[in-house]
Amino acid sequence: MRAASLAPLSAFPLPPGWQAIAGGLTAPEGFLAAGITAGLKPSGNPDLALLLAPLGAVCAGSFTLNRVRAACVDLCAERLDARGGQARAVLTNSGQANACTGERGLIDSLKATEELAKRLGLEAEEVLICSTGVIGQPIPMDTLLAGLDPLVAALSRQGGEAAARAILTTDLIDKQIALEADLGGRTVRIGGMAKGSGMIHPNMATMLGYLSCDAGVPAETWQAMVRRVVDRSFNAITVDGDTSTNDTFLAFAAGEPLSPEHWPALEAGLAAVSQHLARAIARDGEGATCLIEVRVEGAVDDAAARAIGRTVCSSSLVKCAIHGRDPNWGRIVAAAGRAGVGFDPDAVALWLGEHQLMAAGQPLAFDRPAASRYMKERAAGAYLLDDTVLIRLLVGEGPGKGAAWGCDLTDQYVRINADYTT
Amino acid sequence: MRAASLAPLSAFPLPPGWQAIAGGLTAPEGFLAAGITAGLKPSGNPDLALLLAPLGAVCAGSFTLNRVRAACVDLCAERLDARGGQARAVLTNSGQANACTGERGLIDSLKATEELAKRLGLEAEEVLICSTGVIGQPIPMDTLLAGLDPLVAALSRQGGEAAARAILTTDLIDKQIALEADLGGRTVRIGGMAKGSGMIHPNMATMLGYLSCDAGVPAETWQAMVRRVVDRSFNAITVDGDTSTNDTFLAFAAGEPLSPEHWPALEAGLAAVSQHLARAIARDGEGATCLIEVRVEGAVDDAAARAIGRTVCSSSLVKCAIHGRDPNWGRIVAAAGRAGVGFDPDAVALWLGEHQLMAAGQPLAFDRPAASRYMKERAAGAYLLDDTVLIRLLVGEGPGKGAAWGCDLTDQYVRINADYTT
Repeated sequence: MRAASLAPLSAFPLPPGWQAIAGGLTAPEGFLAAGITAGLKPSGNPDLALLLAPLGAVCAGSFTLNRVRAACVDLCAERLDARGGQARAVLTNSGQANACTGERGLIDSLKATEELAKRLGLEAEEVLICSTGVIGQPIPMDTLLAGLDPLVAALSRQGGEAAARAILTTDLIDKQIALEADLGGRTVRIGGMAKGSGMIHPNMATMLGYLSCDAGVPAETWQAMVRRVVDRSFNAITVDGDTSTNDTFLAFAAGEPLSPEHWPALEAGLAAVSQHLARAIARDGEGATCLIEVRVEGAVDDAAARAIGRTVCSSSLVKCAIHGRDPNWGRIVAAAGRAGVGFDPDAVALWLGEHQLMAAGQPLAFDRPAASRYMKERAAGAYLLDDTVLIRLLVGEGPGKGAAWGCDLTDQYVRINADYTT
Repeated sequence: MRAASLAPLSAFPLPPGWQAIAGGLTAPEGFLAAGITAGLKPSGNPDLALLLAPLGAVCAGSFTLNRVRAACVDLCAERLDARGGQARAVLTNSGQANACTGERGLIDSLKATEELAKRLGLEAEEVLICSTGVIGQPIPMDTLLAGLDPLVAALSRQGGEAAARAILTTDLIDKQIALEADLGGRTVRIGGMAKGSGMIHPNMATMLGYLSCDAGVPAETWQAMVRRVVDRSFNAITVDGDTSTNDTFLAFAAGEPLSPEHWPALEAGLAAVSQHLARAIARDGEGATCLIEVRVEGAVDDAAARAIGRTVCSSSLVKCAIHGRDPNWGRIVAAAGRAGVGFDPDAVALWLGEHQLMAAGQPLAFDRPAASRYMKERAAGAYLLDDTVLIRLLVGEGPGKGAAWGCDLTDQYVRINADYTT
């Protein structure tokens, strides 16, 4: 499983100075994690995870924009607000989303964090909670509470991998990564883990994402960095256009303060970790056979470029065409046209891999079998992020550029979601 | 085929005073139509249609908001603008969308309308053109031009049905309707036809719609009426979230002026015709096995209610659940939550048919097998609009209400769109 999530890095160039290391979320100094089977999932798979950050940690959170959101999301947002972004731990249960569970949902979330805080010697307000799974199902609290002692006992500097497995629901592979770089003579590490895989769409997905970093950064700076990074990663992926009630991304930083001159390099590393996790979520979209990356250039600004990319990635017709390995440029350009962003249709140029399909808004003669073969070959690898079908769109002469990621739409997606029981 | 498109009226109550009649687009006095096989489609199916409106006709047009739009759409919009909504005829070719065809696309559209105008004794500026089919393919002009003489020769008062067939592409059934009412002692008739069936989404769809009416209404009043009606019909349907380059709705009115006191009754009739056609397009969505109707009440205003309805109808997860006959209220309420419209999640009540699934934002105990059976039974009829799965959402105490229509997402949709050649 680890190989599958780390191998693709070669295909996704890292920013200068950063290199991949082992350890996931617990690679950065001082972070402990654990993942256990508490019995919340009927399958018997691991279902309870814990991340403990060092004293003094700051945490930046990014949450679903869905009007219907779970009590645990409200609780995270309120606690981070109330404490100016200070938090030490986050508990995650998978199996029950604890959304649409009314007052009981909030009572259970509060209780879980209180009981965990006691065991960790923390204030309840320093503990956050994320839930993922079936909407409308409350958490079996006896089971969860009985799991807290073994969970705390399992905390370790090697716990990142177990935590990454315990947060999964319908995901096929775990999603984690760690990078390190020398910044001003000291080693800085960033770790991350995430889960998908249905209801993935900006803004945020049924998606939980976690990041750890052993450099100290002031809370406001950290929050601004993370906001920019999320826009370029988790908010740039789509699986099926749906947005969940529980989407949460939590990024912790704790350690010796990092000099401001190195903040740009740190942000580049954060973006690489977040984009890796976001791409892994899209690639692991339900029923998907390949990752789709849409790079847009020449837009009026970066936000416009990302909007075009996201709209192309979320088009059912484009997704079906790529599943059929059909170089259907017409659907791509029609999707771009409805992104709600101004551009000159007569300026559009389009490439699929190395095959140019359009110039000046019109189709070119191209080697159709070769373009189709390109897509077939890209989808040959099983769950590797280098099996990416790359679409590049030039939409004008503006300075804006950006990327978005998605996956193909398959019969299998329909079967999974038609047969899934609420 | 006619029975399939007329039968559902019983399930969709008509406004007071209006009743269904035969004749489609040519039911209103003075309107002529024709549909022939010119040879534009490889299949040999009818592919050229013509509607001729009486002298003095006003026409209201509604067009795709896609930035990438076909030359014929620009031409229609410009001619209607330039002539204050006066137009007499519209030519439709199916087989080639003539979009992304650059300057040639415009030259061909101009040529086709000029040649047709000569044969009808009209100015070219009084003639409109719609194209539907494969994007990027220009129209084989020799074939189209050779078809104009037989097309004009075929014009008749009974031509509505042939025209309705000639505009189809991947549609499985033709879509037409006619209604009449006594308004102030005179009979007023409204006819309509439309085609789908991929790339259907607000605003407008790969959708062509046409409406005829034998009551005279001032151009500006007519345009305002049609705009309101389109919002409640063609802009309230979705098949797959994609919007085409060619979507066009053209509504013609010509006849003795109708007294303003009867305008509200006329608008009710226009809405019924347009909603019937819009529902028929959604029902005939690619691979669909049922129509989904989402009625929303209690929103802040009607536009908000429609937005919630559309978002639920366009959710892939909801569409898959209904295909699987799974009463998955969680996906419905999660989709409503991301509509970008404010409402109180704790006020949400939800019904599937007669089965209430939620109250006060939380799931109720309900008879799951019976709710699933309700969906199974509704989807038992083949291509009948009364096989509607009805979802009702109460989102608060506001005055806003509205409806939206869609269809389920099936393996078949994926197969059709993965295997379709550009």
